[in-house]
Amino acid sequence: MDVSDIGEFGLIKRLTAFLGPRKPDNLVLGIGDDAAVWREGDAYLVATTDTLVAGVHFLAGTPWADVGWKALATNVSDIAAMGAEPAFALVTLSVPPETPVEDLDGLYTGLRECATAYGVTIAGGDVVRANQFSVAVTLIGRARVAGSQPLLLRRGAALAGDLIAVSGTLGNAAAGLRRLRGGAGQDDALVGAQLRPHPRLALGREAALAGVSCGIDISDGLLQDVGHICEMSCLMALVKAQAVPISDALRSAYPDDALRLACTGGEDYELVLVGGRDLIERAAASSGVAVTFIGEMVDGPDRRARLLNDSGKEIEFGAEGWDHLRASERGA
Amino acid sequence: MDVSDIGEFGLIKRLTAFLGPRKPDNLVLGIGDDAAVWREGDAYLVATTDTLVAGVHFLAGTPWADVGWKALATNVSDIAAMGAEPAFALVTLSVPPETPVEDLDGLYTGLRECATAYGVTIAGGDVVRANQFSVAVTLIGRARVAGSQPLLLRRGAALAGDLIAVSGTLGNAAAGLRRLRGGAGQDDALVGAQLRPHPRLALGREAALAGVSCGIDISDGLLQDVGHICEMSCLMALVKAQAVPISDALRSAYPDDALRLACTGGEDYELVLVGGRDLIERAAASSGVAVTFIGEMVDGPDRRARLLNDSGKEIEFGAEGWDHLRASERGA
Repeated sequence: MDVSDIGEFGLIKRLTAFLGPRKPDNLVLGIGDDAAVWREGDAYLVATTDTLVAGVHFLAGTPWADVGWKALATNVSDIAAMGAEPAFALVTLSVPPETPVEDLDGLYTGLRECATAYGVTIAGGDVVRANQFSVAVTLIGRARVAGSQPLLLRRGAALAGDLIAVSGTLGNAAAGLRRLRGGAGQDDALVGAQLRPHPRLALGREAALAGVSCGIDISDGLLQDVGHICEMSCLMALVKAQAVPISDALRSAYPDDALRLACTGGEDYELVLVGGRDLIERAAASSGVAVTFIGEMVDGPDRRARLLNDSGKEIEFGAEGWDHLRASERGA
Repeated sequence: MDVSDIGEFGLIKRLTAFLGPRKPDNLVLGIGDDAAVWREGDAYLVATTDTLVAGVHFLAGTPWADVGWKALATNVSDIAAMGAEPAFALVTLSVPPETPVEDLDGLYTGLRECATAYGVTIAGGDVVRANQFSVAVTLIGRARVAGSQPLLLRRGAALAGDLIAVSGTLGNAAAGLRRLRGGAGQDDALVGAQLRPHPRLALGREAALAGVSCGIDISDGLLQDVGHICEMSCLMALVKAQAVPISDALRSAYPDDALRLACTGGEDYELVLVGGRDLIERAAASSGVAVTFIGEMVDGPDRRARLLNDSGKEIEFGAEGWDHLRASERGA
């Protein structure tokens, strides 16, 4: 049996089981959420890590500044998905020795732009030799605290009856990747969504402050990411296809495929919030980020997201979402 | 100009300059020491990251449990070199899809063994697809605090007149790598030093508690790592060749090359402590780890470590220490 047989999520489950139940008193959340959380005095710290590999997570020819931006932005999105604030990043570059130094200057320009935009300080890292370029970022931050409790958006905190909302529009990033493959320029709006995602830090923060307790960011695809909430909350999600927010740009570029891209495309780095309507609307208003209600959490026979058409019939796509070790939609 | 022209350390300097001087009030140490350090309430947290790449940092055929052990141990050594205690690790695996799952089970066995030995909890991570296997670990820990000040071993805290001491013996790990290349078995003591380094956590802790304020671990080679202390402290180091501790095993295996391996070999993960004799001896006694005094820090014309023979003449080796992006001594 090799890794491609069990896929990314199968592998993570297997390895998690392997590590056993050891858990110190101050660890609030370990493997399985968008970030680990632990108590440190009166503070609750969060830490996450995400890696971009050349040819897997970005195409050859992608501007290096965009690679740098995205390497940090994907991590900021994980922190946003916890309702927390980022603080310090460690950056590891794995570089072939023949890499032009100017490429790395470009990478660092993008990293610095993203760090400045989201209040992150790059505090350390590592440089190693490799055959294939990759950039790995670990991002450490802080949760908001009320009284002595952390205000967190957890995957496992959904309740039956909770509404499901999503920020922005979905599918642009996946459409942008398709365009890039077809040779589109950098000034295309869909391409921009693929190259420079803007994580929803303000919305995550305001959601946590408003009392929303469940959320996730969309990195792998709406249905797959809501599926993670289903698994961790032991519930089913019903998502109304007609409610899924799709941009005009996506609809006009890929009219026949817009819904599939929006539901399975991934990499939008929008936030899914799950909870009461009032709380979610308050978070949207105070952050100034538009959200759309797309469905609800219910008790149900299986722990996954079901996409329903107007007549309540399930719409199924061939491959739902992104698995690094199985799929081949992205990258080179 | 490509990366191999400026090397690992040139690249880190260039990128550090690129990031600019931005530094929040609570960041105590950023890029340039063994770990970043920041204040969090009354605590001082430390974070470091280190990556092992297949064929670069370990040979094909290395037992996977040893790879897992070493991936975490190298990070524990960085925390030891700050005089701090490790707490939580995030682990990123970059894996070719055809990797047998059993290999990763083996890797996790070794990771777990090391985590248990040093009190580390693996709290999260990432799995990505890549052409070349690598394992990246970020390790977060805590510095000891006295009053409101952190007790840290810093690279930049050496003073002229300070003595230089080193734990254990040096060169075994490099000799072990040479043996492995020659087809030696796993039961060889030198090979053991290469595959399963034992970071000096207790010595680092006791040194910080005793009031030693300068140290580094030996990952790149004695002269190069002491050279980092020289650069950061704006001093020169004089190291007496005859005092460098060399094991009987190394001396009998490579009589003509033992000194060079001990001074430039790297990967021993022993600790260098720099300070007053009394403080260092107290740390050695309370940790039960033997240390050897090998030289002293002096004002001098250049900021590097000079290795001196009995007559005070400098001994120079061709290539001093390890640079991931230039050298080719290690790996496949």
